[in-house]
Amino acid sequence: MTYELYYWPSIQGRGEYVRLALEEAGADYDDVARSGRGMSEMTRMMEDSETPPFAPPFLKSGKLVIGQTANILLYLGSRHGLAPKADAGRLWVHQLQLTITDLVLEIHDTHHPLGPSLYYEDQRAPAKRRTDEFWSERVPKYLGYFERLLVDRDGNFVTGRRLTYVDLSLFQIVAGLRYAFPKRMDRFERDIPGLIGLHDRIAQRPRIEAYLASDRRIAFNEDGIFRHYKALDI
Amino acid sequence: MTYELYYWPSIQGRGEYVRLALEEAGADYDDVARSGRGMSEMTRMMEDSETPPFAPPFLKSGKLVIGQTANILLYLGSRHGLAPKADAGRLWVHQLQLTITDLVLEIHDTHHPLGPSLYYEDQRAPAKRRTDEFWSERVPKYLGYFERLLVDRDGNFVTGRRLTYVDLSLFQIVAGLRYAFPKRMDRFERDIPGLIGLHDRIAQRPRIEAYLASDRRIAFNEDGIFRHYKALDI
Repeated sequence: MTYELYYWPSIQGRGEYVRLALEEAGADYDDVARSGRGMSEMTRMMEDSETPPFAPPFLKSGKLVIGQTANILLYLGSRHGLAPKADAGRLWVHQLQLTITDLVLEIHDTHHPLGPSLYYEDQRAPAKRRTDEFWSERVPKYLGYFERLLVDRDGNFVTGRRLTYVDLSLFQIVAGLRYAFPKRMDRFERDIPGLIGLHDRIAQRPRIEAYLASDRRIAFNEDGIFRHYKALDI
Repeated sequence: MTYELYYWPSIQGRGEYVRLALEEAGADYDDVARSGRGMSEMTRMMEDSETPPFAPPFLKSGKLVIGQTANILLYLGSRHGLAPKADAGRLWVHQLQLTITDLVLEIHDTHHPLGPSLYYEDQRAPAKRRTDEFWSERVPKYLGYFERLLVDRDGNFVTGRRLTYVDLSLFQIVAGLRYAFPKRMDRFERDIPGLIGLHDRIAQRPRIEAYLASDRRIAFNEDGIFRHYKALDI
């Protein structure tokens, strides 16, 4: 069976956490809006599905249409060995992914503090204040939390010896923060050696390495979640 | 077995979605930080747990410690008949709850657009702009989505004939928006007759009615997610 992934065709965005899981799993998938069928098929699905998603990304798996990034990963994790099978471990990994979801929204808010439907150019001053707060308060809190989990477990991955979709998502967080805030991140990386090591190990996994070198990996750009604006990276 | 709920003792906040589910289920639970053991026990759990939560609320169920509101509801839903048992329905209900999670964060951002660690008083002007955008763009999008689900299913509840934890959460959204933005909500309610009807039916369920009248229900106040600031409600 071929999965169908529905997401904006020109950004990594929230879809990237799903793409990374599908790639690591070696799953067969069609990135629909990037293929011939394009955006119209995505719009049609959002209108006609029996379980209409509020927003992309969503995944079609047979008859199922599953929305919300963390929910898609919950589903894929069980099917592809990217999360523990037992309830306790499955809920723990999902809990960590939901914490990453919160972080991703806060990253988005650095350039859109006045709301998602206004342009960045219309909110430069508040974006600067929000970004300062994000780097002084929120990044240390979020990344410090995951760093401690890595160190306490003394393992290769956040939950111990086995890779989960959370590790793939943390790779994306590190890669994205490096793209959006190279100066700030350069200064901060000394505080999170564990996460930097995790990022590097993920980047070297054969399927991820092949994916990152392929044209399936969309380049970071200023329409996505991680945006590089010089005024925000001081 | 008695559940232990850990959440800030003086606000409804994100803990309220869990409290409503526990109350509707008639589950035995201890709201730990409001009881004799207080906040110190909550802090200790966050430091010493094998699966430390990033933030409250979290639920202790036997040996399990489960964090993230939607994840707790995923767990409780299966155990107390507040969600379908089959995978497809379970994922669909969880997906809707994650959409409510996003909405709750946007509600919080109306009074904290520059970030959660600054006071509202230090961000009044951006809060006003963000609130205007929230009511012109985001409320119609989010509540319109849930309204359509209710109408399309022609049922008493969002997913059809049976109550789920999503219905309880939507009750809280309507109640909270009425508290925080009475004028704006009064004008908007004509667009969401289905959701208003749902709110009223939930409020009349015997266990919820008893809960709302009890001192277990904390009053809305200006430390929670839903805050009434006159300047934001025009």
